[in-house]
Amino acid sequence: MPKRISQAQLGGIRKKNVQADRRTVELIRATADEVNTRILKQGKPDLKFPVRALSNVVYAENKGYFEIGRQKKVRTLTVNTVKAFAQTLRMMSLSKQLVETHDFATKRDAYYQSKNWGAAMFQDQTESDTVMDDIEALFSVSAINREQLRFIPDEHGGAVAGELVVYDPDLETGEIERIDCTRFGSGAYSIPSLVEHLSFETEAKFILAIETGGMFQRLQSHKFWKKANCILVSMSGVPTRSTRRFIRRLSEEARIPVYAFVDCDPYGISNIYRTLKVGSGNAAHINQFFCVPGACYLGVTPEDIVEYKLPTHPLKEVDIKRARDALKNDPFFLQHRAWRKAMEMLLKMGVRAEQQALAKWGLNYVMEEYLPRKLKSVAAFLP
Amino acid sequence: MPKRISQAQLGGIRKKNVQADRRTVELIRATADEVNTRILKQGKPDLKFPVRALSNVVYAENKGYFEIGRQKKVRTLTVNTVKAFAQTLRMMSLSKQLVETHDFATKRDAYYQSKNWGAAMFQDQTESDTVMDDIEALFSVSAINREQLRFIPDEHGGAVAGELVVYDPDLETGEIERIDCTRFGSGAYSIPSLVEHLSFETEAKFILAIETGGMFQRLQSHKFWKKANCILVSMSGVPTRSTRRFIRRLSEEARIPVYAFVDCDPYGISNIYRTLKVGSGNAAHINQFFCVPGACYLGVTPEDIVEYKLPTHPLKEVDIKRARDALKNDPFFLQHRAWRKAMEMLLKMGVRAEQQALAKWGLNYVMEEYLPRKLKSVAAFLP
Repeated sequence: MPKRISQAQLGGIRKKNVQADRRTVELIRATADEVNTRILKQGKPDLKFPVRALSNVVYAENKGYFEIGRQKKVRTLTVNTVKAFAQTLRMMSLSKQLVETHDFATKRDAYYQSKNWGAAMFQDQTESDTVMDDIEALFSVSAINREQLRFIPDEHGGAVAGELVVYDPDLETGEIERIDCTRFGSGAYSIPSLVEHLSFETEAKFILAIETGGMFQRLQSHKFWKKANCILVSMSGVPTRSTRRFIRRLSEEARIPVYAFVDCDPYGISNIYRTLKVGSGNAAHINQFFCVPGACYLGVTPEDIVEYKLPTHPLKEVDIKRARDALKNDPFFLQHRAWRKAMEMLLKMGVRAEQQALAKWGLNYVMEEYLPRKLKSVAAFLP
Repeated sequence: MPKRISQAQLGGIRKKNVQADRRTVELIRATADEVNTRILKQGKPDLKFPVRALSNVVYAENKGYFEIGRQKKVRTLTVNTVKAFAQTLRMMSLSKQLVETHDFATKRDAYYQSKNWGAAMFQDQTESDTVMDDIEALFSVSAINREQLRFIPDEHGGAVAGELVVYDPDLETGEIERIDCTRFGSGAYSIPSLVEHLSFETEAKFILAIETGGMFQRLQSHKFWKKANCILVSMSGVPTRSTRRFIRRLSEEARIPVYAFVDCDPYGISNIYRTLKVGSGNAAHINQFFCVPGACYLGVTPEDIVEYKLPTHPLKEVDIKRARDALKNDPFFLQHRAWRKAMEMLLKMGVRAEQQALAKWGLNYVMEEYLPRKLKSVAAFLP
């Protein structure tokens, strides 16, 4: 069982969270001050946002993820822009208030809040979402993410079980709850929408990120994490924002690797795994926080299909299109020769295999044979 | 905090689970014995399944849910049916083995397992799903559900937080884990795929079943459950099978009511809420286990839109169609005059409102005003 961290360390967690919040508030204030100063000098204030468009996305080879480029769009206060300008400032002010009152808001919440902003009211949630995305991009330049601004996604994170203790300070009292993820029986720890304030304590050797709920349940109910000394995370398809952030923060703080265990098909590989590892081009301004560049691919690989004689399904049209697109256009695949080879092999075989196909050899073959054998040659995992 | 249950009670939980499993195995054995006896007497064995079709669904007014009717289809062993007959017996045998080894299988797992059944192998998962559904229907007549047969859904359940302790006996050791749902910080308890073996201890007054993850997170982070002495369950849209079964079992064992808190639109009302309460016509053979007939509707109601001056969106085409269909054909709405009135009012207003629309009056208005006021007149909730 993970050891208990000391009172001094708990104090450290509290202090670190307070400092992070202080920095967020200072940055909001500094941005607003600049606008204010310019107005007082009778100048036209402006705000400079990174351009959020695929044309302004670069694949940072050294960092291993999609990054936002240097293009900026300038929003200057004019008669035409006054409403959007005011809305941006109101939204920043809402964020400051949320940090100061230890609260948070979803995109929906923020939209409805604006209904009390008089002329700055949003007519449509797409408008307020855009403003929030702009602010997120603006502050991401200073390495502050939307969650630190206290704007949270509307979905939960995935489920977690295994050799991990999570420390979670109460919003209002600051009291720290100790959550032992070995003690959930057949259930699991459900990741909250906001994970910035969590701290971790673990002696686990790695994190296993699993595609399907069914496979997670098998490994959890049979306590595979105990045998393998690891932490299990259920992604349930493409991982949500908080799941990705949770895995990223946990793997960094605990300095342990992340192994992905997904279906062997173009969706599992190029959507689920690639999004986990390098993020998405459409949201490049947030990948610095959400991708898990150190992740690698345990399986199911195209070679596994042959080696383990797995039952397969034929690739669908959409699978083939997805794989060809990835091979042709996706910087991640262009970068990694091993992945191009694997994807080409899959296309040539013309089939896909689900992770549960291993059940052909017995329901618990996956725990007793497949995973232990794989884990003996981690160096051979796909990048 | 909920009080700790005694050693004697823990022993009782173990015993109850063992007895339930014994009964399942006995029923499987009895069914197989009948087939065997008939064969030994040189007769043609058969199996009688309830017909799973909308034509064989009745709305049981007294019980408050859709029920499967009395029509049966008989599968007699002939040259033409030999494969399906063998597959059915193999699937029942798999179930028996799962119960005896304290294991479980998803639909996918069962399909892949069949790859080792020689001539009884399934070619396609839809075939094995059909056989599993037939077996489920067959045993549902004896009040045994698919989960008791140890066939589990591939999705997790929702998230739970609040005044509840869950007791979860370990699959292999029988050791009982005590899970205190007041101790998860901003996170939550993630309901396992299989909930039959869980026991509960709670002093809560009610269960609040919540549509969106964002609203759940708000009520959880601010510990609304403490103030209201309740249990929060996040459904994240239409609740999964395990979420519904969890709520059903918990509300029955603890004898506490279930209040649904969802968006005020035809989807929230006639899909999410109605499925929770009376189940679905398409899966009538399982509603006896999965519906929550005692649930009632806290809000958001069409009247709330007026009373709380909520921001709205216009009803979409699909909303209008769904509402009209419900009014015309759905036995649940035909049964409840109050619901017909509410739905007609919504159609007349031509708008819908999300539960987060309450944020117009402040992010925590929902906790400080709306819910407390609503909870004062539970008798006025829609049925």
